[in-house]
Amino acid sequence: MCDNNLPIGVFDSGFGGLTVAREIFRNLPNEKIIYYGDTARVPYGNKSQDTVIRYSKQISRFLISKGVKAIVIACNTASALALDAVQASCSIPVIGVVKPGADAAVRASASGRIGIIGTSGTIASGLYDRYIKELLPSAQVFGKACPLFVHLVEEGMIDDSVTVEMIHRYLDGMISRDNIDTLILGCTHYPLLRSVIAREIGGVYADFTDNASDSSPCSRSGHPITLVNPAYTTAKALAGLLNEKGLASDIPVSPHDHEFFCSDGPDNFRSFASEVLNMQIDRVHLKVLE
Amino acid sequence: MCDNNLPIGVFDSGFGGLTVAREIFRNLPNEKIIYYGDTARVPYGNKSQDTVIRYSKQISRFLISKGVKAIVIACNTASALALDAVQASCSIPVIGVVKPGADAAVRASASGRIGIIGTSGTIASGLYDRYIKELLPSAQVFGKACPLFVHLVEEGMIDDSVTVEMIHRYLDGMISRDNIDTLILGCTHYPLLRSVIAREIGGVYADFTDNASDSSPCSRSGHPITLVNPAYTTAKALAGLLNEKGLASDIPVSPHDHEFFCSDGPDNFRSFASEVLNMQIDRVHLKVLE
Repeated sequence: MCDNNLPIGVFDSGFGGLTVAREIFRNLPNEKIIYYGDTARVPYGNKSQDTVIRYSKQISRFLISKGVKAIVIACNTASALALDAVQASCSIPVIGVVKPGADAAVRASASGRIGIIGTSGTIASGLYDRYIKELLPSAQVFGKACPLFVHLVEEGMIDDSVTVEMIHRYLDGMISRDNIDTLILGCTHYPLLRSVIAREIGGVYADFTDNASDSSPCSRSGHPITLVNPAYTTAKALAGLLNEKGLASDIPVSPHDHEFFCSDGPDNFRSFASEVLNMQIDRVHLKVLE
Repeated sequence: MCDNNLPIGVFDSGFGGLTVAREIFRNLPNEKIIYYGDTARVPYGNKSQDTVIRYSKQISRFLISKGVKAIVIACNTASALALDAVQASCSIPVIGVVKPGADAAVRASASGRIGIIGTSGTIASGLYDRYIKELLPSAQVFGKACPLFVHLVEEGMIDDSVTVEMIHRYLDGMISRDNIDTLILGCTHYPLLRSVIAREIGGVYADFTDNASDSSPCSRSGHPITLVNPAYTTAKALAGLLNEKGLASDIPVSPHDHEFFCSDGPDNFRSFASEVLNMQIDRVHLKVLE
């Protein structure tokens, strides 16, 4: 029998997966995590499937060596390109963010016209499209790679005229031509742009109880576009998985129980993670994987 | 004695160093090269010195195993952060792009007020500043990290309103406040923006005989800003080094003699490199270094 108090491994190409960790902390206060950010090889979004699989398997082996009871791939690109390979190579449960994001979008959409934005790798994989159509065969899915968004977020250019210009270039077609009613923020950086995207395209949040006040009441086309953040539904899916497998912990953890690793720049990582997670992180360990 | 007909190793974090390879082909038609682009770990620009040194030493060992007679670090970030470490670990000559770029800027500047743009890593290293002041102690050097430029180039957004906006945000202070007369394009991607930068800030090219027709006659402040591309002066510095060490080849090479390696996406690399180098590249080898 697995010890239910073992930690959960969470990994991403860098910082973005911290938005998933945040939702896990909020929704599963009894679970401690070990987070790995691959900051020495970030980004994954425009790299090949072979490379993303190799990196994801290296990180999963490391997390398993640290004794985790389950793994969350908190990166859309790695979830889209490497989930099957990581699951096949591990004996513990592994979930990604794509399937929970697809589930949430299908539940949120009235018309079945669903937009998905993400990295080039995520969009080219077609995986969101596949999961959505498994759940709702009549759905029409419109994917758009938005490669500049990650860099605009990393430069802190959130409510910025350049970002607003890029939001309209990337998304106006989905709104006016494709007539979507739901938009999946299919990259873990994008929720940091959610308020600006909502304001510009006329969006409301699904499953974002803490951000409901940011919502814009109606879209340009007269009905609101529901923005779906897979991070929230991933935390819910993780809770379901742990209960189903009898792996849920029932002992509350303190913020100091979590552990953080990255492959480059641990000091930068610590200050950024402390801000995103709104908690003081005492130490981030440097761990190079090759 | 070293065989003068051995190849020269050239490496970069990805594609950018191809602009240096192009200048080597133009200026040293008897030299064949082995190029390595670290596309699986690109970019280097915001990674730590330790990580950039580790990657640069791995690549240098690989190039030496292929029998190169000298190495050109065709990446500003790796030149700024790892040149000393690579030189210390190699018995063959190694040059970077920073010193040749600094030399060219000092020759081009009348006022000694020199701007340098590059990645966060290159600017934070202060290495351009140090080399310039070794040559011209009275120089005043103004550095500015321009992290979005690489991504705008990679998205093909060359003559684009967003790129123009970012050029002004990054550079207007250097022009109007710092009153520079020379600007070093201190990242191998930036020469691909040279025409737009020149038009927007009023620039002329130094050492760019093939691009002279792109020049803009005068700057906003009434005198032209000289744009310096270290790629050109690096090729000249390489020629000088090979002659000095008695390593220059005297047998012309054909385009098919060059070899290309990358760590991810060899097909993408081949098509991009064929375009930048304006020659048909038959094969790019995938070589993962860890």
